[in-house]
Amino acid sequence: MKKFEEKTLQSETIFEGKVINLLHEEVQLPNGKTSKREIVKHPGAVAIIPVTKDNKIVMVEQYRKPLERSLVEIPAGKLEKGEEPKRTALRELEEETGYTSHELTHVISFYTSPGFADELIHLYIAKDLEKVESPMAPDEDEFVELMECTLEEANQLVIEQKIYDAKTAYAVLYLNTKGM
Amino acid sequence: MKKFEEKTLQSETIFEGKVINLLHEEVQLPNGKTSKREIVKHPGAVAIIPVTKDNKIVMVEQYRKPLERSLVEIPAGKLEKGEEPKRTALRELEEETGYTSHELTHVISFYTSPGFADELIHLYIAKDLEKVESPMAPDEDEFVELMECTLEEANQLVIEQKIYDAKTAYAVLYLNTKGM
Repeated sequence: MKKFEEKTLQSETIFEGKVINLLHEEVQLPNGKTSKREIVKHPGAVAIIPVTKDNKIVMVEQYRKPLERSLVEIPAGKLEKGEEPKRTALRELEEETGYTSHELTHVISFYTSPGFADELIHLYIAKDLEKVESPMAPDEDEFVELMECTLEEANQLVIEQKIYDAKTAYAVLYLNTKGM
Repeated sequence: MKKFEEKTLQSETIFEGKVINLLHEEVQLPNGKTSKREIVKHPGAVAIIPVTKDNKIVMVEQYRKPLERSLVEIPAGKLEKGEEPKRTALRELEEETGYTSHELTHVISFYTSPGFADELIHLYIAKDLEKVESPMAPDEDEFVELMECTLEEANQLVIEQKIYDAKTAYAVLYLNTKGM
């Protein structure tokens, strides 16, 4: 999959952060001309659709500074360096919801914004949930509120734009298609 | 939707590009402590599911520099300043595929990466397509190859990870759910 490949002529690191790095690259286009590309490097992430034994979806509400508002989302989190995505999924599920899962299944992986970022999200569905007695705590700067909702309620949250992000919209559509 | 609001204490513009800007902000957390947020500002985008009269989906293959590979995606493009999303959708559809649509319907809008970016994508389905005689040309640095595929072929492209981004994965699942 190298069709219309753009060769890197120059790559400048503009910023190295806690979460993302920013590169500014000069590339050679397929027609020989040059152009500039702005590229966000991201470690990748997981997202989990936790389904409880009584057919509720566990969601988290949290503030999203880029949007200056809070969203209701399925639990998610960044991959640690070298961490296997399935392990990240179980860790984030426990940290954000206090649950562990005995039946974690990969649903799909996708890039979120391939035009400017390399973030890849691995989506899992977590069933056979069990409350952990002393769950790992979330990151220090993470404040989330848990909610459990039916699929019908989740569909309503999509309409109300409280659920308003790609991975959670995909998750709700997936449950509508495949059932809980 | 201001739950767990994070107040901006300081905002530094690290980079202003053609497509994105990068901010580095110091915020006050709900517990009074401070933290840093890395924020990508994006103008927003549209994506279009073009369905031809013989029930094919029009896709574009293009190179994505952040991934160093090409992807098969539904047509998409950035909002121009002040441009109404529906107008952007018709413009991008024409530029990338040479089609216009007499039946353009909003499907859903979602943020792609709310953890670090404010990109909002508006997804449309375009039916009643008609070839434009002298279509507007794509941007100078855009090289895309058109393909038309059945829903079955699109599902196969998802499995092969040639379709590998959130908006196109959502679009294919949507068509599976609602039909063409």
